[in-house]
Amino acid sequence: MKYCCSFLLLLLFGISGGFAQDKVECWGRYEISLPAKVKGNPFDIELTATFSGPDTTLTVRGFYDGNDTFKIRFMPVNQGVWSYVTQSEIPVLNEVKGRIECIAPGKGNHGPVKVDGTYNFKYADGTRYYPVGTTSYDWMHVAGNQPDQTVKSLELSKFNKIRMLFFVQNFDPDYPEPSMFPFEIKKITKDEKGKPVYEWDFTRFNPAYFAHVEACVDKLARIGVEADLILFHPYDGGRWGFDRMPLEAGVRYLKYLTARMSSFRNIWWSLANEYDFLRELKPEYWDTFTHTVVENDPYSHLCSIHTYTAKYYKYWEPEYTHASIQDQAPVEGFGRAATVKNIYKKPIIFDEVCYEGNMDNRWGSLSGQEYLYRLWQGLIVGTYVTHGECYMDDPKDYSRDFLAVGGTFQGESWKRIGFTRQILDALPNPLHLCDSSWDPYTSTAGENYYMIYLGKEIKPEWAFDLPVKNAFYPRLKEGVRFKVEVIDTWNMTIAEWPVVFETTAPVKDRVYDKNQGRVRLPASPYLLLRITEVE
Amino acid sequence: MKYCCSFLLLLLFGISGGFAQDKVECWGRYEISLPAKVKGNPFDIELTATFSGPDTTLTVRGFYDGNDTFKIRFMPVNQGVWSYVTQSEIPVLNEVKGRIECIAPGKGNHGPVKVDGTYNFKYADGTRYYPVGTTSYDWMHVAGNQPDQTVKSLELSKFNKIRMLFFVQNFDPDYPEPSMFPFEIKKITKDEKGKPVYEWDFTRFNPAYFAHVEACVDKLARIGVEADLILFHPYDGGRWGFDRMPLEAGVRYLKYLTARMSSFRNIWWSLANEYDFLRELKPEYWDTFTHTVVENDPYSHLCSIHTYTAKYYKYWEPEYTHASIQDQAPVEGFGRAATVKNIYKKPIIFDEVCYEGNMDNRWGSLSGQEYLYRLWQGLIVGTYVTHGECYMDDPKDYSRDFLAVGGTFQGESWKRIGFTRQILDALPNPLHLCDSSWDPYTSTAGENYYMIYLGKEIKPEWAFDLPVKNAFYPRLKEGVRFKVEVIDTWNMTIAEWPVVFETTAPVKDRVYDKNQGRVRLPASPYLLLRITEVE
Repeated sequence: MKYCCSFLLLLLFGISGGFAQDKVECWGRYEISLPAKVKGNPFDIELTATFSGPDTTLTVRGFYDGNDTFKIRFMPVNQGVWSYVTQSEIPVLNEVKGRIECIAPGKGNHGPVKVDGTYNFKYADGTRYYPVGTTSYDWMHVAGNQPDQTVKSLELSKFNKIRMLFFVQNFDPDYPEPSMFPFEIKKITKDEKGKPVYEWDFTRFNPAYFAHVEACVDKLARIGVEADLILFHPYDGGRWGFDRMPLEAGVRYLKYLTARMSSFRNIWWSLANEYDFLRELKPEYWDTFTHTVVENDPYSHLCSIHTYTAKYYKYWEPEYTHASIQDQAPVEGFGRAATVKNIYKKPIIFDEVCYEGNMDNRWGSLSGQEYLYRLWQGLIVGTYVTHGECYMDDPKDYSRDFLAVGGTFQGESWKRIGFTRQILDALPNPLHLCDSSWDPYTSTAGENYYMIYLGKEIKPEWAFDLPVKNAFYPRLKEGVRFKVEVIDTWNMTIAEWPVVFETTAPVKDRVYDKNQGRVRLPASPYLLLRITEVE
Repeated sequence: MKYCCSFLLLLLFGISGGFAQDKVECWGRYEISLPAKVKGNPFDIELTATFSGPDTTLTVRGFYDGNDTFKIRFMPVNQGVWSYVTQSEIPVLNEVKGRIECIAPGKGNHGPVKVDGTYNFKYADGTRYYPVGTTSYDWMHVAGNQPDQTVKSLELSKFNKIRMLFFVQNFDPDYPEPSMFPFEIKKITKDEKGKPVYEWDFTRFNPAYFAHVEACVDKLARIGVEADLILFHPYDGGRWGFDRMPLEAGVRYLKYLTARMSSFRNIWWSLANEYDFLRELKPEYWDTFTHTVVENDPYSHLCSIHTYTAKYYKYWEPEYTHASIQDQAPVEGFGRAATVKNIYKKPIIFDEVCYEGNMDNRWGSLSGQEYLYRLWQGLIVGTYVTHGECYMDDPKDYSRDFLAVGGTFQGESWKRIGFTRQILDALPNPLHLCDSSWDPYTSTAGENYYMIYLGKEIKPEWAFDLPVKNAFYPRLKEGVRFKVEVIDTWNMTIAEWPVVFETTAPVKDRVYDKNQGRVRLPASPYLLLRITEVE
């Protein structure tokens, strides 16, 4: 049964083992495997392949995968016949030619996520994508069954993105040594405490480490989760030194990684987590690293970088497709996240707004309600807010800490993610404030489709009252009939108010109900009103 | 007496009438007047002068001032001897040489305002400058004594910046024709209603119009007010057509204006008011206009551009020295303006946050208290908030509307500006949140100098409680003794609390008073706590 399952997945993802298979689904992956014994460092060999297909020619970089084998991976982006030819200084790797047929994508394959318009995302096939992600830094690097449990938890929770570290995290000095590293080890010595000190050969990679990460990313693809892969992080503290690589080593690593992984349709590049804490890397390195990733990714996957709280980055640079922000302040009140959106004019993801958890610090101790509140403060204005939870039994016991090592969710807010996504998926268009800065409460999702989030306020009723201005949609007119649904975002209920409302003519900037109608509200916080046209 | 006064002012500003005067104060103005009869359009003549002085060489552009006279204006930026030589294709304008001695600046002359560090301003002589400005679009273009009354009002109120339009504003169809225009009139016809329709010669300027603006800017300099000159605006509506000039005409106008006025030490360039409403100008024109101004201003005066509410501009471009923002949302609550500051990493001036007034609209009907509240919400985090007031007796009667035509202030908030500036001027450093996004209430002005704005909240007491983190200053230590002053920003009182506080050791992120001390507060809104070290 297991064998059968793997075989099916192979077909589903269009992963080829060699030349034999010439059909691959759109946004699937085609892999060419070329045996070659070379002199010197095989990781130094330049190998590219040019794929020419319907309306598109793409040149992709190959890579050495160990065992005297070079590989080229390709993600076809249009259906139809593609021909390819390789280029290399090594004769046996040069002028290798072939043809593949790109067929319709399989079920659940919508292609990579792209920026849609100014503020939002869509899959390549045109399906809307609202990112509702979580975070687990080290889940891929944990031993045993835990990674598979993490994938199950993600599937159950309905998160559709995860932020995760490519390099293993050094949680504390007693955190065990990982079983694999991405680079070849030149030498291991011991420090005065008997701990290993590694000397790396940054010019030689360990393909098994990359293959493991790739397998994890493919598992995420199967459950519709985008892999927001964090390429550098400061949580190494010099233990392994991946937070202080020379510039050249960093560039080499990024070129190798993008050659291997650009063909993964669910990959996103996050240059760093808290890049400003990588104090051994010079600030100007980040431009070089960013350019390296963008220039070596022929598919232009989503790309951003993450800073410490409220530091903000130059996300206006064209290399960054969206802003990946750490700052809770913009989602702590009404309309604030809209200001960030208005400034950057790109999709905004608040990737860190503090986490649900029980940690004895200010960033890991939100209640589930507070996270859900922050999530909706972001969502209501058309920005996105990433989840994370860190429940720990003891300051040194990371075993239950999903943020750290994945596994099983312990908290409360994750249970509301599926319901939240239902509300989002029902929208005709992404949310946007109707009248930015003049009315921080009322959002539109199109003509005669409004949402008002009530946040923490508990009030007995809501008087029908909408702005005339409706963002980039036509202004609200007189005589439109609306129903109002009261959505309890915490308790996950939707109750339709039994009376239909009908708009007055505009009174200055607002319209009201002709009968001065009101909706009685339950005495609960975290309510959301959905106000939509009825016949 | 009037003659004597003008003579003194001439000396004070170092304005020369010709070659005779060879001493000019630093950041004063030296003017060379060169008679020349030329063929063709004298405004087409290129004339420059290179001034070489201590450590600096500056090339400035001259201009045709009518009456067969060309002029070169120069603002020396260092004390000492400067020599100059002119360049032109016209022999009589070429190779004119001379020397001037730049002497110490006179009283009240601190030089032009420059950006200081990341978020703030200083005068060229190092004196701190906190912009507390107001707005009067058309004050220069009003007939009679009104402009002089405006200057008196500005002096009385202690505003130190004013936003004002270079081109006259078309308030309504009945607004009278101005007595002068900046361009030569080719032809006047009448429309079907008998109103004049002008055809302009955009290649020929009216020097008298520019001279009038210059005289107004000099009057502002004398009372220490920076002239934030708005170079384009949409409030023409096609009546005179200055909102829809061809690109070439716009560039020509900006080159002429900068040649005439870059030597005015108190000039700031505001490319436009609500640039996005100038719908007849293509978006890309603004890059050209901005580059024209910056490249033709040898002194790099402050430069920005202003948009409609919440639209925000690419103030990260190097040409913009600061952000000139229209948006009330960031100053409607605690810490929000800090987010804007954190993103742009430049000085932030909220140049339009709605206005105090009695207009029947949402932008001109703030109470004086509400404006003062927004002012302090900006100031407390180290951003700046411009004032404006528009009191009108009738929707068509602009005579009392300071925003429109200047004159005399009618409102309440302007009376608090002098007091506000006293508080600012007493700061050892500009304000900045101690712990951005974690504590949106507490600001620092240096080591052991804090300010907390209480806004609209009325509460009986304030328990001594400060963050350990103190922005870029050393962390707050145990055993520091503080006094607390309760400043009523509306009633303009300062009351020192009689008990001295002494800090505990940090308790996580906060420090408290060793005796759990509290300050009893008056039952008033708009209070500000100033918490400073005592011996």
